[in-house]
Amino acid sequence: MGNAHFDDQYSHQKVEIPAPKPFLKTLKSCVKETLFPDDPFRKFKNQSLTKKLALGLQYFVPILDWAPRYTFQLFKADFIAGITIASLAVPQGISYAGLANLPPVIGLYSSFVPPMVYAMLGSSKHLAIGNVAVPSLLISAMLGRVVNPHDNPKLYLQLVFTATFFAGVFQASLGLLRLGFIVDFLSHATILGFMGGAATVVCLQQLKGILGLVHFTHETDIVSVMRSIFSQLHQSKKKPAFFWISCMAPLTSVILGSVLVYFTHAEKNGVQVIGHLKKGINPPSYSELAFSSQYLTTAIKTGIVTGVIAMAEGIAVGRSFAIVENYHIDGNKEMIAFGMMNIAGSCTSCYLTTGPFSRTAVNFNAGCKTAVSNIVMATAVMITLLLLTPLFHYTPLVVLSSIIISAMLGIIDYNAAIHLWKVDKYDFLVCISSFIGVVFGSVEVGLIVAVAMSLLRILLFVARPKTFVLGKIPNSMTYRNTEQYSAASSVPGILIIHIDAPIYFANASYLRERISRWIDEEEEKQRTLSEIELQYVILDMSAVGNIDTSGISMLEEVKRNADRRCLKLLLANPGGEVMKKLDKSNFIDTIGKEWIYLTVGEAVNACNYILHTCKFQSKRIESSTIPDDNV
Amino acid sequence: MGNAHFDDQYSHQKVEIPAPKPFLKTLKSCVKETLFPDDPFRKFKNQSLTKKLALGLQYFVPILDWAPRYTFQLFKADFIAGITIASLAVPQGISYAGLANLPPVIGLYSSFVPPMVYAMLGSSKHLAIGNVAVPSLLISAMLGRVVNPHDNPKLYLQLVFTATFFAGVFQASLGLLRLGFIVDFLSHATILGFMGGAATVVCLQQLKGILGLVHFTHETDIVSVMRSIFSQLHQSKKKPAFFWISCMAPLTSVILGSVLVYFTHAEKNGVQVIGHLKKGINPPSYSELAFSSQYLTTAIKTGIVTGVIAMAEGIAVGRSFAIVENYHIDGNKEMIAFGMMNIAGSCTSCYLTTGPFSRTAVNFNAGCKTAVSNIVMATAVMITLLLLTPLFHYTPLVVLSSIIISAMLGIIDYNAAIHLWKVDKYDFLVCISSFIGVVFGSVEVGLIVAVAMSLLRILLFVARPKTFVLGKIPNSMTYRNTEQYSAASSVPGILIIHIDAPIYFANASYLRERISRWIDEEEEKQRTLSEIELQYVILDMSAVGNIDTSGISMLEEVKRNADRRCLKLLLANPGGEVMKKLDKSNFIDTIGKEWIYLTVGEAVNACNYILHTCKFQSKRIESSTIPDDNV
Repeated sequence: MGNAHFDDQYSHQKVEIPAPKPFLKTLKSCVKETLFPDDPFRKFKNQSLTKKLALGLQYFVPILDWAPRYTFQLFKADFIAGITIASLAVPQGISYAGLANLPPVIGLYSSFVPPMVYAMLGSSKHLAIGNVAVPSLLISAMLGRVVNPHDNPKLYLQLVFTATFFAGVFQASLGLLRLGFIVDFLSHATILGFMGGAATVVCLQQLKGILGLVHFTHETDIVSVMRSIFSQLHQSKKKPAFFWISCMAPLTSVILGSVLVYFTHAEKNGVQVIGHLKKGINPPSYSELAFSSQYLTTAIKTGIVTGVIAMAEGIAVGRSFAIVENYHIDGNKEMIAFGMMNIAGSCTSCYLTTGPFSRTAVNFNAGCKTAVSNIVMATAVMITLLLLTPLFHYTPLVVLSSIIISAMLGIIDYNAAIHLWKVDKYDFLVCISSFIGVVFGSVEVGLIVAVAMSLLRILLFVARPKTFVLGKIPNSMTYRNTEQYSAASSVPGILIIHIDAPIYFANASYLRERISRWIDEEEEKQRTLSEIELQYVILDMSAVGNIDTSGISMLEEVKRNADRRCLKLLLANPGGEVMKKLDKSNFIDTIGKEWIYLTVGEAVNACNYILHTCKFQSKRIESSTIPDDNV
Repeated sequence: MGNAHFDDQYSHQKVEIPAPKPFLKTLKSCVKETLFPDDPFRKFKNQSLTKKLALGLQYFVPILDWAPRYTFQLFKADFIAGITIASLAVPQGISYAGLANLPPVIGLYSSFVPPMVYAMLGSSKHLAIGNVAVPSLLISAMLGRVVNPHDNPKLYLQLVFTATFFAGVFQASLGLLRLGFIVDFLSHATILGFMGGAATVVCLQQLKGILGLVHFTHETDIVSVMRSIFSQLHQSKKKPAFFWISCMAPLTSVILGSVLVYFTHAEKNGVQVIGHLKKGINPPSYSELAFSSQYLTTAIKTGIVTGVIAMAEGIAVGRSFAIVENYHIDGNKEMIAFGMMNIAGSCTSCYLTTGPFSRTAVNFNAGCKTAVSNIVMATAVMITLLLLTPLFHYTPLVVLSSIIISAMLGIIDYNAAIHLWKVDKYDFLVCISSFIGVVFGSVEVGLIVAVAMSLLRILLFVARPKTFVLGKIPNSMTYRNTEQYSAASSVPGILIIHIDAPIYFANASYLRERISRWIDEEEEKQRTLSEIELQYVILDMSAVGNIDTSGISMLEEVKRNADRRCLKLLLANPGGEVMKKLDKSNFIDTIGKEWIYLTVGEAVNACNYILHTCKFQSKRIESSTIPDDNV
């Protein structure tokens, strides 16, 4: 056995060039990995045409897949969960509509049609559909810039529907075109900072309202009561024991507040109330879509920005709960579902909806099993719209503000930010930039800054790749970073440089300079320590995932430079893609096939063999061949 | 010795977490690698203050460094080269100024002051300074959109100077801020396609002029003679024997053309000639800089775009010749030199200059040794300006067109494009998009498309990283990609997945899905082949250069997913940066320190040890410890 391992070190396996594939086949597999990484066609394989059609229909309308298996047992769980989230949906819908400068009833409409549509098309079992605070704020910020919602409420409303329509179209198109991965570019850190910033802005806005109220009407009691209730609730969020209190708090506050105002007639003393709410379910609004408006571009822009943000939140939330319950969610399919529900919403007087985290968490904790909980919630909201709207006449706006603030305080997650600082300083920087951008600039500024910084990180990773010197781990054939492993010791006469990124145009110049600096430093070190002269440079290509033509030119220059310095250049472990390109550009011939090794260890052995065994004198090494039986 | 190697396989070296560095030190080394990769401060170390000042001055004004060593021998070589490039500079200067819709004399001015400035500040020995065709075209395209150069030549000229000024300021700032690497983002493929496209546009423009002339004046003789001369010259470019003919051709054509027109009075028969050229050297133009113009933004935009392109060409050319002659060029220092020469130029009636390839190649072939050849050229141009301008009165414009076409034909390098197609299809795509963008859109469109596509490639590399399954190379402890190495065979019960990119937010979702798909496929395969059940998943992190917080969350999910499937997750060879972050986020504790191995081989050995030696029955493996003496 010892012998077998002994042989290991000198395996005669050479680095292989993958067999050439036809261009179209490569292209196909490349497109497939990029756009269909989850391989949605797998289950369509080897099926009859009818079966394929049925599967296709089930793919786009998942309810057809699971409805036949639905049981009364499941319905009981879904019913309780649905009623629970409805009690959240009604006050939150009214509050968030206010945040978007829309009539309160639009918020209720938005909790009726979109959840119904999602229940048919969505693939998450736990997502609860509804309006969300941050996109609501964004809508009022972006559209409010061109149309004043108070001076021209009709046009403003039309623009909101139009923006919602385009948000839906954009979401559905991304899904259909399998471009869902665009959402991945909104990193966790970006969203954290962005949400925190937006929540801060919302809180400050609402707080101003509340404090103004305090000053003018001395209704401190309600306010302080509300605030203390909510802060208690916020505290209790982590304790499941208080789960029902937490869920029912918004509705309870609305009821208590309304009753209080009704009996004290506080609305006559300056306490603002919701006032008249139109009875009846969603009126159609497709004729309101303002495609010929002069503000169409603003509406499209608003739609795309808010659509992306809402979708990012919805998909992230859906995925999180899918992982907890161990089922799979197809991001692209979810996008189509979100898109369809917003297109449908924009034609039925709803504004932008998605799957908010808070409501979904409540849905999950209340024990929902399938998307039927959304149908239950929608039905409950429908009943509210048909029968109960007069009850909200006396609901004081300050209660709505409190509901918003309470929800927002939960969003500002400074512990997560501290975690980012601890683990990854750059992520923290992205998060803080996003936060500051939103708070001191605008939501778009924050978003653009954060995305740009996130992308910059990827570009910098490639533009300034890490290079480090490898040394031998004692008693092994393994070579590792000398900075990471204190035990790793460099090999006399041989410089092993590890390149830690693909070699692309963006880093070709840098790598050329950096490699030449490593050689300079090594030669200097050896001069001062009067060690063996440097004779070999091994480039460890293990982590070089790909190379482009600029990268190959760079390697050619490094080779020429090495020749001029009378150094021999070796490559260790180039990957398949890299070998293919080095072969096509004839660089393998330039460097010599015999100087490319499977492992760093083998390359070092080959160098040592020449250095010691052959008593090699001349510094200029011609492409010498190493005997096959070199041990 | 056999024994020593035997031990190798079971080295007890564990993966180390690098010692924590103070945050500021990390930041410093990070900034240094990003902005000072060439370590320009190295020679300042351990020097006295006076020496440091002297070195600093020499750094910014390199002529102080080399002038003291300048000899008459060098001057002889530089003189010949300088006169040679002057004979190119005069006709090219006049021609390219026409391309930018400027009076011909501006082209001569631009070959006087900027080369002088560059000779002081530049660090290239071979760069010949002058105007270039493509940025000239860009200037007329971008500024011509807001001001018509024929209706309002004075304002147009002011804007050109202003744009040149901002180009200089931008170039110098990039250099001072050490942001030179921005130029690296213009890949070789981008520039190839861009230049080819621009050259095509220029040729078509000029050809129209020439053909128009043919039609109206029947002066076919001159044209065909000129064109055949130039096409011959173009052919001969690669033969050094015809070097002098090639160099002198433009000047000869100008002289012959002018003499012909003078004697035949062809200018009265419709052949357009240059006409009156003002005598005297550059008048000052700093008062012409239109900082308060309403078109200032256009001028700044034009300056930045043309400045970047001109700089990219100049630096690439300078670097190429520096590599041939084995000396070093500091890109950032070159940018400062370019910037200063354009700022100086904008104040002395010059427009944008850089180091064009054609002129530099001639300079190099004519034997220049230092930047003094630029001074010689500038002096020759100065003499032309002072004494010889009347001689150009009768120079026909068609000769200038021919000069431009001749230069442009050399730029269209279809062989290089074919090479791109052969080696790297994506680079070819970038090149062709850039070409098509320039020819059918505009220069900016072409540039933006090509840069965006180049960046997209980097982003896609990270967003859709390659993952592949590793197998054992027979008779070795090495594990390699089973697709690349036909001999590599997978290990029963163990799935080894290699991740070929950093794990960032952009690929975290994808990797989660892809890893879970690998596991699905492996389990399915083992079910159908009724092999040993899958029990271990090893993630080979050798090529994972870095990880962010989204990536760590992904690993945590993969771990949870593996636990749920009763699989054990192992990591092999995570790098220093990755280990540091896994440690800070406590993921090392989650996965168990004993499940992280130095090499894939050791991880497989550990798995096999449990699988076979312990007769392990239960599928649920608790964090078992492997005895130290496991062989």
